[in-house]
Amino acid sequence: MVSKNQIKLITSLQQKKYRSSNQLFFAEGIKVIQEMLESNFELVHLFTTQNDFEEVSNGKRIIITESDLKKISALATPNTCLAVFKIPAEKKIIESGLILALDSIRDPGNLGTILRLCDWFGISQLICSKETVDIYNPKVVQATMGSIARVNVNYIDLENYVSQTKLPIFGTFMDGNNIYKTDLPKEGIIIMGNEANGISAELEKIIKNRLTIPRFGNIQKTESLNVATATAIILSEFRRG
Amino acid sequence: MVSKNQIKLITSLQQKKYRSSNQLFFAEGIKVIQEMLESNFELVHLFTTQNDFEEVSNGKRIIITESDLKKISALATPNTCLAVFKIPAEKKIIESGLILALDSIRDPGNLGTILRLCDWFGISQLICSKETVDIYNPKVVQATMGSIARVNVNYIDLENYVSQTKLPIFGTFMDGNNIYKTDLPKEGIIIMGNEANGISAELEKIIKNRLTIPRFGNIQKTESLNVATATAIILSEFRRG
Repeated sequence: MVSKNQIKLITSLQQKKYRSSNQLFFAEGIKVIQEMLESNFELVHLFTTQNDFEEVSNGKRIIITESDLKKISALATPNTCLAVFKIPAEKKIIESGLILALDSIRDPGNLGTILRLCDWFGISQLICSKETVDIYNPKVVQATMGSIARVNVNYIDLENYVSQTKLPIFGTFMDGNNIYKTDLPKEGIIIMGNEANGISAELEKIIKNRLTIPRFGNIQKTESLNVATATAIILSEFRRG
Repeated sequence: MVSKNQIKLITSLQQKKYRSSNQLFFAEGIKVIQEMLESNFELVHLFTTQNDFEEVSNGKRIIITESDLKKISALATPNTCLAVFKIPAEKKIIESGLILALDSIRDPGNLGTILRLCDWFGISQLICSKETVDIYNPKVVQATMGSIARVNVNYIDLENYVSQTKLPIFGTFMDGNNIYKTDLPKEGIIIMGNEANGISAELEKIIKNRLTIPRFGNIQKTESLNVATATAIILSEFRRG
């Protein structure tokens, strides 16, 4: 069963301040948990309503009822299991190859989708501005579908970092060069901006390589692309060769 | 103010069966409503908490309180306005150029994002299998950001339609041809499959052109791409020339 203290702790982990103070986060669902167990994430407790995860030691694996799972789950329709992990120490930034950098991405679903894209396109380093939604937010963890275990993520002062890097810096703007007609390198930092405001004015000053995804619709009114779909197209262009 | 009957009607429109029986749907937010008003959607009522939309006739425009808006809104944090529109009659399918077809897309956010992509890439015809989530679902309407006004959408028996078309048919599979190395035509039907199960076995038999978005990550375990991001990459490839 789940103790009252455990319920209190786990539900508190939906908030960033409690994830920070406890240095813990949680993931739900067999697939996501399985992928995190196979990576270097340190398991604290695994709660499951089924007789699975038998490889997890008895002290850490706790079989619970569906009604108990509901009490700790962040999902409207809980899965069959929830695992609490320690937040690992941030690793050093790997400054080579293609790096994706996010300037204040706020939507957890967007961040999760972008992390999956990094994983698919072999981008092993994701850099987030401090205003970007927390990677250990339960909605982000869920949306990454396990990719969180394979991409190195750092939260830093993005403006400061970008000012001192020797890698070429790319950003997308309405008035940039047609990305389909631009030679794109194998190394560089690609910056994606906030959902509503795009790339901040401070960062924009530093970006030398301005790119645009051309619009093919006839009507001028077409909304800008969602940041996750724009990231998909940009990473595809950098990788397709 | 909003009458009890109006509250009952509008909240019922969150369910497909009541949208069908009333032939009505609703949209929220200034931007989305503005785009629908400028298109051919027939307004029934516009409820707003502000002194805006003055071009709408007095009989149709109703100024309400924030607390009344909360009662009719489908959003956790209501906007400032909500408009009820008539569901337009389905237009004939435009069988030329590029057509996107969806086989049982279930997530409203995915459908909304895909509709925005159609709009961006100048795809004016979207065909959905009857199992695909309803385009007038409030979450879809919200996610389209107004693109719903510019893309022709039809719900049909997809297998039947695809069996009789003369256009070339494309689908993405794990074992298809590298999309980056395939000559893609200016005309054709691109089929995207269900979030969990991909393209159905029945449809797969009919698809002659099998495409794959290559994976660049080192590790075999990389999850498949989300259907909306895969659609973004595929439409980009078809259009980039």
